Amino acid sequence: MSKYGQRLARLQSEIQSQGIDAIFISPGPDLRYFTGYDAVPLERLTALVVQAQGDPMVISPYLEKSAALASPIGEMGLEILTWQETESPYRKISQSLGKLSKYAVDGRMWAEKLIHFQSEFTKSQSVSGTDVIANLRMVKDLEEIRSLQIAGLAIDQVHAQVPNFLKAGRTEREVGSDIANAILAAGHKTVDFVIVGSGPNSASPHHEVSDRIIQNGDVVVVDLGGTMPDGYCSDSTRTYAIGSANEDYLARFEILHKAQQLATQAVRPGVSCESIDDVARKYMTEHGIGDLFIHRIGHGIGLETHEHPYMVSGNSKLIQEGFAFSIEPGFYEDGKSGARIEDIVVCGTDGAIVLNNQPRELFVV
Amino acid sequence: MSKYGQRLARLQSEIQSQGIDAIFISPGPDLRYFTGYDAVPLERLTALVVQAQGDPMVISPYLEKSAALASPIGEMGLEILTWQETESPYRKISQSLGKLSKYAVDGRMWAEKLIHFQSEFTKSQSVSGTDVIANLRMVKDLEEIRSLQIAGLAIDQVHAQVPNFLKAGRTEREVGSDIANAILAAGHKTVDFVIVGSGPNSASPHHEVSDRIIQNGDVVVVDLGGTMPDGYCSDSTRTYAIGSANEDYLARFEILHKAQQLATQAVRPGVSCESIDDVARKYMTEHGIGDLFIHRIGHGIGLETHEHPYMVSGNSKLIQEGFAFSIEPGFYEDGKSGARIEDIVVCGTDGAIVLNNQPRELFVV
Repeated sequence: MSKYGQRLARLQSEIQSQGIDAIFISPGPDLRYFTGYDAVPLERLTALVVQAQGDPMVISPYLEKSAALASPIGEMGLEILTWQETESPYRKISQSLGKLSKYAVDGRMWAEKLIHFQSEFTKSQSVSGTDVIANLRMVKDLEEIRSLQIAGLAIDQVHAQVPNFLKAGRTEREVGSDIANAILAAGHKTVDFVIVGSGPNSASPHHEVSDRIIQNGDVVVVDLGGTMPDGYCSDSTRTYAIGSANEDYLARFEILHKAQQLATQAVRPGVSCESIDDVARKYMTEHGIGDLFIHRIGHGIGLETHEHPYMVSGNSKLIQEGFAFSIEPGFYEDGKSGARIEDIVVCGTDGAIVLNNQPRELFVV
Repeated sequence: MSKYGQRLARLQSEIQSQGIDAIFISPGPDLRYFTGYDAVPLERLTALVVQAQGDPMVISPYLEKSAALASPIGEMGLEILTWQETESPYRKISQSLGKLSKYAVDGRMWAEKLIHFQSEFTKSQSVSGTDVIANLRMVKDLEEIRSLQIAGLAIDQVHAQVPNFLKAGRTEREVGSDIANAILAAGHKTVDFVIVGSGPNSASPHHEVSDRIIQNGDVVVVDLGGTMPDGYCSDSTRTYAIGSANEDYLARFEILHKAQQLATQAVRPGVSCESIDDVARKYMTEHGIGDLFIHRIGHGIGLETHEHPYMVSGNSKLIQEGFAFSIEPGFYEDGKSGARIEDIVVCGTDGAIVLNNQPRELFVV
């Protein structure tokens, strides 16, 4: 059985165990995971349909049937139900499937499509398929781990070049533009985000780039990510300083660095997701900067930059071998400065395999 | 009042007239249209909240508050309600808004977020905000028309270079790669799609690129689009031939060309969207190729490549001045060959303003 066939069989068994009659998966990372079909999400409904019993099938606009068949769906020999421009695909599905007591949709499906399903299946309960699918996608197989390793090496190459781009007198946008080119040159298919947060902007965790001119004495948080041709994502943050940083900042940075190390060392199968966050937060709190660590420590990564598992207080899920996620503590003082260190790790047999390996120290350029 | 303030006021008046108590708009083109905030769609909830009464507000993860304030939302002075990593933003919204009898969400909101809203507002009716928002977004103002004109000129520049890239012996993928670079060089911020359908692949309307080697005697459908830095999209198709095309194909292409002209000439305020499709389909049917025209004639365009209005049989909506949409008839003979001609037009006072102006004839390279 092909890789996709195996995944579909696991999905079917998962929905059976959850009492779900059918799941509808629209274009996006979930569809790519289960079928290899990298369809563009558009307004016309395309969906993989997996029922608790029977063979999976695909519903597709008639004009995209050839595109679907040109994907791995063709080789798998899945039945393709097509609909014409003036037909309702939701009606076609309900006519084909009959009554459902409970169905799920992929978490990223467009709300307007879910609402169409709800209007068609008025007697059925609709639930998010996010957790069901996450149970499968969270555990990366060897091929996926290799993909994430290659993505990690690619973004490491970019961080190795950042000191060449970062200069006092340039704007964040100019630096970001060079970085974006480097992300593509390193083998990514798309640039997903480029955060160059200089000076006070380093205190905004999801800053992107601005026209601010980088100055001597600035610290600069550089958080970069892209998607490789096979769909797997990279994500790594390093913090730089232009010329120098002050003593207080350096002391805090040392605490952050140690906290990131401790969290990485805490990774092993059987410990909870929230415990990784807790290790870093506790250390930073003991050293006086816990209140400046204003976000969770990390997120899963794979075919999406952010996916399950989320490494956050309240998530008691136990880490399994093959979980891949970021470890990225930071500290942020509003209007002044911030810092973050981020690596992607995979949980191995007895600890973290670290996929980003550029030096984590504050890099003075 | 700012452009965004005016749009928000119109949105409020629109939901009042539809009996909707509140609308929630997550990151994407709708949020950008109403606030200028080009936030990345991620799993944490960010949403514009517009109620039938009172001032609009924004809910944002605490760690993204600075990013929201750095967007036009900061200047507009909208209230920002923030939530911490371990809080539920849905609960915060329901605590802030109280009971709702009916609310809407943007059509592109992730299903898992809508399901969270539905679990929080169990006594309320949820509807898609797609139509309410489309009523505003469909009518482009002068600034938007200018943006679409500039996008149109940019993609025209790319089509002007396609003959240099298209050569027998190259693969579709190689040609597509050159085209993607040209799309960026022409001023687009992102490449949204590159369709290079050669030989039999020209018969698959949503083909992208493959490793097929382009051969003498092939026809090649080239459909290109990107997004400009201000968010407005381009989309234009031309059909090329390598060396020559056969007589039958040339005769069909002439029919298609004429059909595209007739449809463009039929555009004026007050005629229905479906009538534009009908004009081309009728002409192609009278000339024997109506059954090969397997998709609607067009779609609206603006901050999204595909948006309302859809120019399709069954859509009796009347065209207004300022509607922007594609006119793109095609013919497709499965496994053999296809063709398409596509321009973006804006409906002016008494007819179509055509934004793509590269020659529409079959271009023999």
